[in-house]
Amino acid sequence: MSDTAPPRPAARPPRGFQDRRARDLRAERAILAAVSGVYEAWGFEPLDTPAFEYADALGKFLPDADRPNEGVFALQDDPDAEGGGPWMALRYDHTAPLARFAAQNWESLPKPFRRYAWGPVWRNEKPGPGRFREFTQCDADTVGSARPEADAEIIAMAAAGLAAAGLPPGTAVLKINNRKLLDGLLTAAGVESAGQKLAVLRAVDKLDRLGGDGVRLLLGEGRLDESGAFTRGAGLDARGTEAVMAFVGPGADDPSRAATLDRMAGVVGGSVEGEAGLRELSAIDAALTGLGVAQQAARFDTTVVRGLEYYTGPVFEADLLLDTADEQGRPVRFGSVGGGGRYDDLVARFTGARVPATGFSFGVSRLAAALRAAKREPGGEARGPVVVIAFSPEHMADYFAVAGELRAAGIASEVYLGESGMRAQMKYADRRLSPAAVIIGDDERAAGTVTVKDLDLGRALAGGLADNAAWRAERPGQATIPRADLAAHVRRIVQG
Amino acid sequence: MSDTAPPRPAARPPRGFQDRRARDLRAERAILAAVSGVYEAWGFEPLDTPAFEYADALGKFLPDADRPNEGVFALQDDPDAEGGGPWMALRYDHTAPLARFAAQNWESLPKPFRRYAWGPVWRNEKPGPGRFREFTQCDADTVGSARPEADAEIIAMAAAGLAAAGLPPGTAVLKINNRKLLDGLLTAAGVESAGQKLAVLRAVDKLDRLGGDGVRLLLGEGRLDESGAFTRGAGLDARGTEAVMAFVGPGADDPSRAATLDRMAGVVGGSVEGEAGLRELSAIDAALTGLGVAQQAARFDTTVVRGLEYYTGPVFEADLLLDTADEQGRPVRFGSVGGGGRYDDLVARFTGARVPATGFSFGVSRLAAALRAAKREPGGEARGPVVVIAFSPEHMADYFAVAGELRAAGIASEVYLGESGMRAQMKYADRRLSPAAVIIGDDERAAGTVTVKDLDLGRALAGGLADNAAWRAERPGQATIPRADLAAHVRRIVQG
Repeated sequence: MSDTAPPRPAARPPRGFQDRRARDLRAERAILAAVSGVYEAWGFEPLDTPAFEYADALGKFLPDADRPNEGVFALQDDPDAEGGGPWMALRYDHTAPLARFAAQNWESLPKPFRRYAWGPVWRNEKPGPGRFREFTQCDADTVGSARPEADAEIIAMAAAGLAAAGLPPGTAVLKINNRKLLDGLLTAAGVESAGQKLAVLRAVDKLDRLGGDGVRLLLGEGRLDESGAFTRGAGLDARGTEAVMAFVGPGADDPSRAATLDRMAGVVGGSVEGEAGLRELSAIDAALTGLGVAQQAARFDTTVVRGLEYYTGPVFEADLLLDTADEQGRPVRFGSVGGGGRYDDLVARFTGARVPATGFSFGVSRLAAALRAAKREPGGEARGPVVVIAFSPEHMADYFAVAGELRAAGIASEVYLGESGMRAQMKYADRRLSPAAVIIGDDERAAGTVTVKDLDLGRALAGGLADNAAWRAERPGQATIPRADLAAHVRRIVQG
Repeated sequence: MSDTAPPRPAARPPRGFQDRRARDLRAERAILAAVSGVYEAWGFEPLDTPAFEYADALGKFLPDADRPNEGVFALQDDPDAEGGGPWMALRYDHTAPLARFAAQNWESLPKPFRRYAWGPVWRNEKPGPGRFREFTQCDADTVGSARPEADAEIIAMAAAGLAAAGLPPGTAVLKINNRKLLDGLLTAAGVESAGQKLAVLRAVDKLDRLGGDGVRLLLGEGRLDESGAFTRGAGLDARGTEAVMAFVGPGADDPSRAATLDRMAGVVGGSVEGEAGLRELSAIDAALTGLGVAQQAARFDTTVVRGLEYYTGPVFEADLLLDTADEQGRPVRFGSVGGGGRYDDLVARFTGARVPATGFSFGVSRLAAALRAAKREPGGEARGPVVVIAFSPEHMADYFAVAGELRAAGIASEVYLGESGMRAQMKYADRRLSPAAVIIGDDERAAGTVTVKDLDLGRALAGGLADNAAWRAERPGQATIPRADLAAHVRRIVQG
């Protein structure tokens, strides 16, 4: 090692990246375990693709098609190679890598191919509050089935997955639409350009945020926002704008999926594409009914469009219906916790052959945050280990034996391994949210006993007592017991 | 979308990266679940740091100190910013990010801070057979304890974790050494330079691969390998070389850890550092004994040095003792499946204050491969879902209802969603390793029955029968039963 000290780096993660600790990880792992169990029960197999793909494989299907070459973390592999190596980029979702995998292995895969995947994705975007450049997504997709029943299966399974993650019936709804309906409507109105159709979809997608008047501007000439920035509109004329507005609202009060379909038929009926879209939704309704999915749990909703360019048919989104509150107790509207749809063109980029596909994706941290805000935190209560107090260095082996006994009885425990005294060790145990501390001093050793301090009770009393000093004087929840009774005694404390 | 077709990208992952499918993922997830359970029971909390760190935070502690600025995937954040943004690099292990996290949060952490972590790490190295640029590591570390008992706890917990992952007593051994012993020996021999000591460690680390004569060359002037490449040696004189060789071998047959310590004392005793190292190992022995770790499960071994520059005291490595074979049945020597040690200087890079730390790390895929090679594959047998055959499109909702019934009974199942006929659907079910296929034709529907084909039995018979045609004629394992008996019937098949 060199003798000249290098400058000390600052200790912080890169901007837009975060460390996640026990509470968040327990919640996310509980969600992933529950959802993985459901997806496997539905016949979906796990798949893990690498963090990197070649940039040309990610291609133009980037999250925001307005900036096709931005948004990803990219680097050149082997830049010293002759002519420079190929560019690689970190995946920004799990769909593009699935398309690459399916194209690569199409001949040997059982078809239709059902897979689920979860893991981090990366977006090279400007970070903001609650907006990170790395987050975990969980996806399920069926590749190789054009049947509307494949969409229905994904929708029903998404509902089952969310229920398993902690959203029982009545707390979430799957809203379903079909791109073909709006496409049919626009075709009937004489709109032909794919770009113009996408602009219409993106305008409708902002209905929640901008309201009807804002969306009307975006469907027509364009809209000037509060900051003075102008967004060009889709360029529809007044008749086209009103036809779209009639299509996207109002709704949500229909008694059944079939009733909504009847209403939709009245607006978009007649065009070839619109009729095809209605037939698909009708088949989805029948399959959902066969699967026992309640009318309230999955309904048709014309306001759902999903902004992504690559959807080609049914689109869906999962909305939270729970009342949620932020850390200050203020009500928060959570809205969508996930979404998806049918995309029949992604694999064709590689092979030239059209391969139908459909899938659903949700953000795991976002769902965990929603459940926490709704007071349904997954993963259970955070608990620390039982702490065996380290009194004197020469008895460490004995403390270890006690901790080992407790673990053998199924109770998480550890020996304090710092150099501090009794008071600091108790404070440490309290900060770890330990249920109990075990003390073996000279008296206990001589008598074959242990002293157990019930820290749960201590915390409860401390939280509820006005006079803390009086509580301390009584030393509640401390007991000296035969060492043979330790595990049973601690188990009673842990189980409350 | 544009009308000019872009060139089709090739469908393949970047070189050195791999897709992982169900069998591998089930094994790795089973290992991680088992090991996480053990680590949490020992009081270690989960922590997830981001994929990226600022390059200066990763600093010079790169996997191979000979190439301090290579080996990582790095990119410049916000290169368009004035003066260019900072460089970020993907983590190459979980230790460097832990050091950054601990330095950043030191004031607020409960101390000592125990955490475990698992997730991918990335190495920008030349890929080769079985050598990937992305792989999953699982680490556990204690930061803030200088006690040898902290090392002992890590060693015992590593043994417990490996046992939970599928390596029962007698199938793995933790080998323990202490850098201070060799340092003491070298100091006593007049060697002062840290660089020369590291060269000695690296030479000893190659004992397995090069044998005693090769290591002697690397300890002295240097060694010319078969390819004609010359590796400069540590530059010890003959006396120094022989002292080191006496220290590193032979051994492994001592009846107990204490006996090995006595033998070590005879070689390195006398130097201040050597004596300190022996005292630490003695404390580790006592703690391991307190924890009930058998002499055969964790022993002292002077050949273990671990190549990393940053270790400052005890080092350890987990070696597989099982007989393993490759896919062709040829015996394979697996050797080390993980390792670790004490590193007291990593956090000081950020804060200037020395923070003692110790930890153990293993490669999850490598352990899974070792277990598979030893015929102890974790995660259980791969099984597909029960497949409900899709006879006619108009009855899809009914097939869905049947699949839903089976899932409600805890049996993974799906409806075939492709467009192929009966024979292809059966082939599909067989390729998915489905235990059974469910057939509801017109006859069954009219009679209120279902036909269940036992594919497990079919596969077993097909594997064992000489005359496949005779087996097919008898249609073994096919039964038509009342629909109400379906779940119970299938469960009998699934449970074998």
